[in-house]
Amino acid sequence: MIRLHYGRMLQDGLDGGVDGERGIARERLAELARRFPAVQGELRTRRTAGDYGFYDLVHQEAAVREISAFAEGLGQAHDHVLVLGIGGSALGTKALLNALRPPEWNELSDEAREFYPRLTVLENVDPTSVAGALRRIDPRRVLVNVISKSGGTAETMAQYLVVRQWLEEALGPAAARHIVFTTDPERGALREIAERDGIPALDVPSAVGGRYSVLSPVGLLPAALVGIDIEGLLAGAARAVERAEPDELMANAPALFAALLWAADTWHGGRIHVLMPYSDRLRELAEWFRQLWAESLGKARDRRGALVNAGPTPVGAVGATDQHSQVQLFMEGPYDKAITFVRVEDPGEDVTIPVIDGMPEDLGYLGGHSLGELLLAELDATSSALARMGRMNQMLTMPDLSAGSVGELLMFLQVACGYAGIWYNVDPFDQPGVELGKRLTFTAMGRPGFSEPLTPRGGGDQV
Amino acid sequence: MIRLHYGRMLQDGLDGGVDGERGIARERLAELARRFPAVQGELRTRRTAGDYGFYDLVHQEAAVREISAFAEGLGQAHDHVLVLGIGGSALGTKALLNALRPPEWNELSDEAREFYPRLTVLENVDPTSVAGALRRIDPRRVLVNVISKSGGTAETMAQYLVVRQWLEEALGPAAARHIVFTTDPERGALREIAERDGIPALDVPSAVGGRYSVLSPVGLLPAALVGIDIEGLLAGAARAVERAEPDELMANAPALFAALLWAADTWHGGRIHVLMPYSDRLRELAEWFRQLWAESLGKARDRRGALVNAGPTPVGAVGATDQHSQVQLFMEGPYDKAITFVRVEDPGEDVTIPVIDGMPEDLGYLGGHSLGELLLAELDATSSALARMGRMNQMLTMPDLSAGSVGELLMFLQVACGYAGIWYNVDPFDQPGVELGKRLTFTAMGRPGFSEPLTPRGGGDQV
Repeated sequence: MIRLHYGRMLQDGLDGGVDGERGIARERLAELARRFPAVQGELRTRRTAGDYGFYDLVHQEAAVREISAFAEGLGQAHDHVLVLGIGGSALGTKALLNALRPPEWNELSDEAREFYPRLTVLENVDPTSVAGALRRIDPRRVLVNVISKSGGTAETMAQYLVVRQWLEEALGPAAARHIVFTTDPERGALREIAERDGIPALDVPSAVGGRYSVLSPVGLLPAALVGIDIEGLLAGAARAVERAEPDELMANAPALFAALLWAADTWHGGRIHVLMPYSDRLRELAEWFRQLWAESLGKARDRRGALVNAGPTPVGAVGATDQHSQVQLFMEGPYDKAITFVRVEDPGEDVTIPVIDGMPEDLGYLGGHSLGELLLAELDATSSALARMGRMNQMLTMPDLSAGSVGELLMFLQVACGYAGIWYNVDPFDQPGVELGKRLTFTAMGRPGFSEPLTPRGGGDQV
Repeated sequence: MIRLHYGRMLQDGLDGGVDGERGIARERLAELARRFPAVQGELRTRRTAGDYGFYDLVHQEAAVREISAFAEGLGQAHDHVLVLGIGGSALGTKALLNALRPPEWNELSDEAREFYPRLTVLENVDPTSVAGALRRIDPRRVLVNVISKSGGTAETMAQYLVVRQWLEEALGPAAARHIVFTTDPERGALREIAERDGIPALDVPSAVGGRYSVLSPVGLLPAALVGIDIEGLLAGAARAVERAEPDELMANAPALFAALLWAADTWHGGRIHVLMPYSDRLRELAEWFRQLWAESLGKARDRRGALVNAGPTPVGAVGATDQHSQVQLFMEGPYDKAITFVRVEDPGEDVTIPVIDGMPEDLGYLGGHSLGELLLAELDATSSALARMGRMNQMLTMPDLSAGSVGELLMFLQVACGYAGIWYNVDPFDQPGVELGKRLTFTAMGRPGFSEPLTPRGGGDQV
């Protein structure tokens, strides 16, 4: 089970913190706890109203059967899965592949992959990436999973048109048999094409937004295709939902996570929320978190329509690597951050650092320890040093990197984000700020019905 | 040549900006220009004193000959280069590989790589990454490049001990012939081992710090081994150094870049500095920039010793991808960011979006355009939309992704960082804030002479 260790978010856990301005005072923690029943009440009301549809992803028996049947049938006929998607249609799949399959999956031999396919996620319209992928991948052996909830995302549709032509040039009418869509159950261009061309299409549940969709068919189909235990993922996710049942803040870990980060931002200037797992296997999960947190909480207006320009800035980092990149700033820069570490107790395998005769004396201390020990020693040292510098930090601990633990972590953070939306009093499920950019792009691309010209100002100043 | 377009950093380039609080006023730009000769004077003095050693990397004829000879000799005997390094010993190499070799280099066939070796950078002590690499890579065909300026970096030395044993188990006494070091010319454990075991060792110039070392043998050797034009890199870098010659701010692009970002932070709350290239090929360069900016400018004390807790927080993003992750926050969240886009005019190849009969009507606008057009249309749309929302942003344009252009961009940003150090009045070449964490780690690992216990406080609060 995932645990939250939050002592170093509190004033009495930080040097320079007691009677100082660093960290959250115990009495303010009590204030958060007193306010929590109202938060929980609002969440229950909105969940009943259907706003928090991602909670229900823990019950997907039919979808799991459909996905498993697909993966074990058609899926096995291919040795490369090519996902076309962007944002919430890409980041979750990358996080799952990174966490739950061996490192550098695509570089492994068929035997080392246990004959599961390679997986490439194209999440941009950069022509060098798309052209490179189409040169690398054999169209006769590929399964293309096009993922767009709306069925009309410009980047994904552009990729789809390119990839469809590439398949048809290689395979003729058989091209459609190499495609599967994941999209809205009823609407959109992908649904229309699926029905016309007889392409199988999995549903993204209507009540689940893109950045909350990793545990829907959006993430589950690619995961199942590469051999990830999707039932384990959902069982872990169910644990996180259970953890959010208590009406007492101090017993509800995802809610406390959200409340502490909101308080750090609102009361103590901790406007930058760093997620820093000490595991290479969670690097992409930190990227996934960046979308979840930024797009859900970064809002101009609150739920009553008042202008608030709210939203913490999420930053991803990986330890120990980023101790040699970001930690100097975290230790000594402005007091504008709250850092969440993720500690994996058992990484699954470890490597002993050998004792080698005749090594220089100042390397001798390493021999006989393991890399895993060194990694966790660095994590504890960094957390401790930050506390001495008066820097708020907390730690999520997870027992291992099993599918259950990763599913639990993903759902824990989604549930926490839903709570944070209530603390910030914003709608965590919309993204109105990206519409203007879309209209400007459509205008530039000549889409009928759009005429939003680029502002010419500011273009002239250059050196 | 790289150009800086800065009109949207200015008040009159932003909506809500004239007579408002958004952006830098023209008269304050004039103030920066008036103050600049003193900045340039201080830089010249400190450069003469040897503090800015990275400028001199554009003159490395001897090192280039040595590296080229090595790459064309011993280098060609191997089909995998394994770099052991962290922070400045890893990020630059990853940026070069990402920018200047085709995507997913290690997944390409020997022919597609023109028989240049694969390249793996191990930049962490995560045992799953290290064990995975040692399973994937054939020790008989590997060249291991161990990179540590001090020659004693704990993570890199731990990796080295593990990899050395792995090589010796496979190759016996021939192991040493598969290793090359890049380290201090005189000091440290790696230099000692090199002399004892007859291992070749390239020099990191003493006056060049880790995060400014990408254009030293630290980055140049791995780059040359995979076939990157290192003379082209340095020729481009020389252009950036020339660009920094003018004593007038408005004619000195790297200096203006630094001054605008300092002013955005200091005068307008733009404390988060986003670097957002619209190119997958510059994703790792943005990560490299994060280290450069964070570790150089994030400082507790200024150069006179006064407590300042300075330092903008750098954030990396990639367009168009992160329009579906970060841009909602950039558009609507707090006015605490200044965003630098990087626009690549010619990506080197492009892909036409086909017109396919019978496509749903609302995809029709895409057909006949290219992916490259769509990418740049999205970039211009996002910059324009941000300006309408009153959000400071600027754009670096580069003509292409040649070695020269990439070398110019790397040196441009390093030179800019050196100027920013002067504006912030901090030492951009030290990193005192990471020492406490190192001492705590050494204590935990039992290194003789270290006794800095973890602070136990704050450990008890958990849920």
